[in-house]
Amino acid sequence: MPASTFVLSASLALLSGAAPAAKPAAAPSKPAATVKASAPAYPQAVAEKLIGPALTEGHAYARLAELTDGIGPRLSGSEGAEAAVQWALRSFKADGVKAWTEPVKVPRWVRGEERGEVLASARTRGHPLSLLALGDSPPTPPEGLTAEVVEVTSVEQLAALGDSVKGKIVFFNHTMTVAADYGRFAGLRGRGPAAAAKAGAVGALVRSLATASLRTPHTGSTRFEDGAPKIPAASIATEDADLLHRMLAGGPVRVKVVLGSSSLPDADSSNVIAEIRGREKPQEIVLIGAHLDSWDVGTGAHDDGAGVVMVMEAARLLAKLPQAPRRTVRVVLFMNEENGLRGARAYAEAHAAELPRHVAAMEMDAGGGRPVAVSLRAGAGGQDLVRPWLPPLVALGAANFSAREAGGADLSPMGPARVPFFGVEVDSSRYFDVHHTHADTLDKVDPQDLARSTAAVAWVTYALAEMPGTLVRPEPPAQPGPPAAAPQPKVSGH
Amino acid sequence: MPASTFVLSASLALLSGAAPAAKPAAAPSKPAATVKASAPAYPQAVAEKLIGPALTEGHAYARLAELTDGIGPRLSGSEGAEAAVQWALRSFKADGVKAWTEPVKVPRWVRGEERGEVLASARTRGHPLSLLALGDSPPTPPEGLTAEVVEVTSVEQLAALGDSVKGKIVFFNHTMTVAADYGRFAGLRGRGPAAAAKAGAVGALVRSLATASLRTPHTGSTRFEDGAPKIPAASIATEDADLLHRMLAGGPVRVKVVLGSSSLPDADSSNVIAEIRGREKPQEIVLIGAHLDSWDVGTGAHDDGAGVVMVMEAARLLAKLPQAPRRTVRVVLFMNEENGLRGARAYAEAHAAELPRHVAAMEMDAGGGRPVAVSLRAGAGGQDLVRPWLPPLVALGAANFSAREAGGADLSPMGPARVPFFGVEVDSSRYFDVHHTHADTLDKVDPQDLARSTAAVAWVTYALAEMPGTLVRPEPPAQPGPPAAAPQPKVSGH
Repeated sequence: MPASTFVLSASLALLSGAAPAAKPAAAPSKPAATVKASAPAYPQAVAEKLIGPALTEGHAYARLAELTDGIGPRLSGSEGAEAAVQWALRSFKADGVKAWTEPVKVPRWVRGEERGEVLASARTRGHPLSLLALGDSPPTPPEGLTAEVVEVTSVEQLAALGDSVKGKIVFFNHTMTVAADYGRFAGLRGRGPAAAAKAGAVGALVRSLATASLRTPHTGSTRFEDGAPKIPAASIATEDADLLHRMLAGGPVRVKVVLGSSSLPDADSSNVIAEIRGREKPQEIVLIGAHLDSWDVGTGAHDDGAGVVMVMEAARLLAKLPQAPRRTVRVVLFMNEENGLRGARAYAEAHAAELPRHVAAMEMDAGGGRPVAVSLRAGAGGQDLVRPWLPPLVALGAANFSAREAGGADLSPMGPARVPFFGVEVDSSRYFDVHHTHADTLDKVDPQDLARSTAAVAWVTYALAEMPGTLVRPEPPAQPGPPAAAPQPKVSGH
Repeated sequence: MPASTFVLSASLALLSGAAPAAKPAAAPSKPAATVKASAPAYPQAVAEKLIGPALTEGHAYARLAELTDGIGPRLSGSEGAEAAVQWALRSFKADGVKAWTEPVKVPRWVRGEERGEVLASARTRGHPLSLLALGDSPPTPPEGLTAEVVEVTSVEQLAALGDSVKGKIVFFNHTMTVAADYGRFAGLRGRGPAAAAKAGAVGALVRSLATASLRTPHTGSTRFEDGAPKIPAASIATEDADLLHRMLAGGPVRVKVVLGSSSLPDADSSNVIAEIRGREKPQEIVLIGAHLDSWDVGTGAHDDGAGVVMVMEAARLLAKLPQAPRRTVRVVLFMNEENGLRGARAYAEAHAAELPRHVAAMEMDAGGGRPVAVSLRAGAGGQDLVRPWLPPLVALGAANFSAREAGGADLSPMGPARVPFFGVEVDSSRYFDVHHTHADTLDKVDPQDLARSTAAVAWVTYALAEMPGTLVRPEPPAQPGPPAAAPQPKVSGH
């Protein structure tokens, strides 16, 4: 969207550091001869009180350091996850934001010993494989699993192979090169191993969903249906996928994999919820969320520590305003986005009666990159309603609407209740360099980018909670076939 | 060096595919009115026969796949190293190049189990460390080594700390960001642990010498003097170095490290030597080398598989010429560059009587990047002698002299004999992304870049072996203090 004169002048006023009146100025009595700020639709003083501190105080980044360095990985059901819950409660309290937990029963999957190798043959010596078990993978026998490898590039190609994969290890290869490819290939990780198990394969290896690699495996969830066969499944580094591909061109390849992962009984965990009660329409709720759990490798700095601290900082800054916004702002730190979506479902279930009063919901879960746009999923007129509130985002680079609809894995259970979604889209072009890896650590998050996205989140949240009108509720999302037991998470940022 | 008219016209003739006369054309009887090829100083037909196949046949890259995928890592004394020796002999034979081995006694260091962690404290939960033992590191006790960490950024700073490092683990941190920083900080890895041991420290952790990291530790050699104390020493990923640095800002940090590395008795190994006998001055030797050994992680694709296949391919193409060059071209694939330089010393010792007849020597050991320049270390007039032979390198981007002197770790024992060095400088800006890591694999080498550098190596080698004059021998390198038992390897590409 090209910047209008209005947008430019308003943002220049903001950038100049001048303190414009909190109330809209009276309309000029004659046409302005030059570019001049017209009356903004929003209180500029509030924009300064939210965006200024977000950009200058470094509070979100400091919080991210606490969460990543101080607590570390926080897979559902782990001690780290519980420590993160307690940290979030403490932090909200310190910020003057009322917070509580709500119970969530979560799956408890634990990684064990893991290693693999390409076995030596007459053609080549052996090679170690750089791998990570996929979440929900059963273990191999203690002595490992040894079998011939069959390469496929799609679940359809696997189906076409029929019985020939019986007793083999299916290797799912693909051509992901940029972040936008994630959606095309994530199904190989999510559904491939289950399909291979049904076809009689004894194991599955999935090429990492990666945009860069230094022999870096990327874990993630794979889904086996209850009662259906499960087989050990691991991701391998792109280098090792390339190696297998090259070696398979020369003849049969055998691989040995040892995975000690195990699934324990479900554990008690929590969503963390915080709220700033609306001053005029407290019953209307603007929800801003992120997920508190992470994978068990790395420290979940981009996924989704960044989202967590963005929405926490938005709440802190909103709570410090001289007066609360018109509507209630509710922060939800979901548990178990990564391997079950139990927190999202628990929230939607526990708050079912309230969902018709959820006037907008956002989840930040695409990393800590700089903001590039705002997004919506709402009925007719949504952009027109929001557009007048966008000028404070011009200098942040986000005062335009994304071509993509807003969404988020943890929002999906609210879809049937037609909750409008909004979002701040961030630059996630390098997100899949580190996503679900040992390398998703604090150093990968740029403090300036994080501050900018935090500022955008704070402002957009305020806008939705303060603007006179509310978004028209969208049509419910299309439900392919019978209602699924588990909502299909959005692939981006999952 | 700006391209002269001569350089341009000659290279355009080469690019055009026209077949210029192998003999220099007669000088024009009157001044040329337009840009016109003057008589080249070299046989153009030979340039085509070397550069054409190097650029089009993909032979060097195919060889690199054999060495990396087929054989893999090849640390001195390992089965992989011996397999590489046999592979090289077979390959030279297949190429019609006479080859043999010469004995080298090599150190035999073996990596074992290795892991580390930052221990939990009142301030933070624990964190795993991504580490690799440094070559020559002794093991820790089986139960590991646990101690407080002291951070330093130089050996001088360590010395200033005096007794306060007794019983501690010294953490050597630095600010390497680009490839050119390697020389500044490599001493921390090479000499830091020995200095820490002398000061009473119980272990050493060195920030990886890296220009990129996805939690990627970079190994390498560290040097303990005979009879002096040795302590367990490992490199840690840059992310973990950053983490330690941040945590140390908040108070004491304790680390536990388990290293199972061991030093076994010296093993029998070999340099591989191949030769194309000169047609006029066979007693004059132009040596081209690379090192056949690699670290035990990754497959040594850039370090130094690329150099190995460049010089092997140069020999193959030279051997196919209708007539051999004037002087003898000798290929030396050195063993044990990485952790001892025993092959280089064995060669210089065994061939001491011949070194005065080594008229030029080159080592390719900075990865498989594209060629960017040629380099020399010779007495007066070297560039003038070589310059007329550079035009075939214009289209390869290397027809200019580097500002840096030629050299190479394996050439250093020939320095006292005043052997002139030459080289093809390659783009090594991304070399330290993967250097000495699990990620130094075939996929990291660009086949086009490798082909271009191979072509440049083949041509420059021919030029040195064919040109009428020989390089003036340089002054011997400065010897700081008494002659060192072990020559100090050049840091670039080591």
